[in-house]
Amino acid sequence: MKKFKIGLIRVLTTDNEKVLYAHEKLIREYFPDLDVETKCIPDQPEGIHSPELGEIAIPKIVATAKTFTDADMIIVSCADDPAVKEIRKELPGIPVTGGGETTLALASKYGSKIGVLGITDYLPRAYQEAEKRYTIIKGKPDCVNSTLDLLTPEGEKAMLEEGVHLREQGAEVLALACTGLATIGIAGKLEKAAGIPVVDPVIAEGMFAYFESVRKQRM
Amino acid sequence: MKKFKIGLIRVLTTDNEKVLYAHEKLIREYFPDLDVETKCIPDQPEGIHSPELGEIAIPKIVATAKTFTDADMIIVSCADDPAVKEIRKELPGIPVTGGGETTLALASKYGSKIGVLGITDYLPRAYQEAEKRYTIIKGKPDCVNSTLDLLTPEGEKAMLEEGVHLREQGAEVLALACTGLATIGIAGKLEKAAGIPVVDPVIAEGMFAYFESVRKQRM
Repeated sequence: MKKFKIGLIRVLTTDNEKVLYAHEKLIREYFPDLDVETKCIPDQPEGIHSPELGEIAIPKIVATAKTFTDADMIIVSCADDPAVKEIRKELPGIPVTGGGETTLALASKYGSKIGVLGITDYLPRAYQEAEKRYTIIKGKPDCVNSTLDLLTPEGEKAMLEEGVHLREQGAEVLALACTGLATIGIAGKLEKAAGIPVVDPVIAEGMFAYFESVRKQRM
Repeated sequence: MKKFKIGLIRVLTTDNEKVLYAHEKLIREYFPDLDVETKCIPDQPEGIHSPELGEIAIPKIVATAKTFTDADMIIVSCADDPAVKEIRKELPGIPVTGGGETTLALASKYGSKIGVLGITDYLPRAYQEAEKRYTIIKGKPDCVNSTLDLLTPEGEKAMLEEGVHLREQGAEVLALACTGLATIGIAGKLEKAAGIPVVDPVIAEGMFAYFESVRKQRM
């Protein structure tokens, strides 16, 4: 039987294969029953690290979504879910999701006090939306402003301490607010340090892709 | 590698193997990477179909949970999540969940207006809780009061019509409120009829067991 296939969109421009396929690799590792095809958007080497860059990316993401020929689902692999709504309108016959809404849905199973751990000063859309329904406790280490900072021992230590701090403030679960936190594999270390479940956006995307594969199978 | 193993508790007493293993069979079918061991509680042939029967079942469910020797997780396979909190207290080292909270968490990804389709006049606990956060639109066909009624052509037709009716009232997703609706396999038919995603409690349990297996792997 043909595997359920994700059309995965990276919202940055790169020809570095390690970077380009980082999310695909994670999904393939934890969801071996799923197939993944990765594409990246053009002319945006810095990716999305501000609301303005998000706006610029939207039409590019929609255009990229339309180029998949045999995907069963489209994932915009970013915690800000950029262009997810727009793709749904343009491609109504196919499930579409992103890293943010999937992370919050999974996290909500583990508690109504959700610690959001990120590397930006603004909350991605789905996490802002979630403030209507849940107690959102936000954390970002001062010394960490990009995933590069997390690759230093100090940066990682600060992130783990921030996770502990969020739990001490009452968080019952940690929702990571950037896919970069998924690819550096900090979720397991954070769980050990903070002692509460950690949901990372790339795994969350994979979880809902798996659910979509179940939906398709039972039809 | 040893598969991640669910200790699955059926909240009714039966020695009919088809009934006893119905949930395990579904989970094995859609999640072949998971292992399942099923046990049922003693002296409750009617299962749980009222809050009173739920109360009586709680100590039996906790006692049954304690008898698993090598489970990685405990699932109380019922949309009312009976004894889930109690087992968490008694067995703090192991993930514990039920059909209700997992169904609502998955459903929340698909919209904030959730149609709840059931066969009882009362809402299971997690669905009541969800009323604080989401618009819950409740549906139950008058002629359907047990899963047996769904095995008649009239009962099934009434259920599918109720699903359509919930969508017409604004539901963006349907959350099934009884595991009996999962085992008769109505989710796929409902999706076709209503045209919106359907989350059934046994699949939802399987989804979160899969997520727990990912959490365990990455530790």
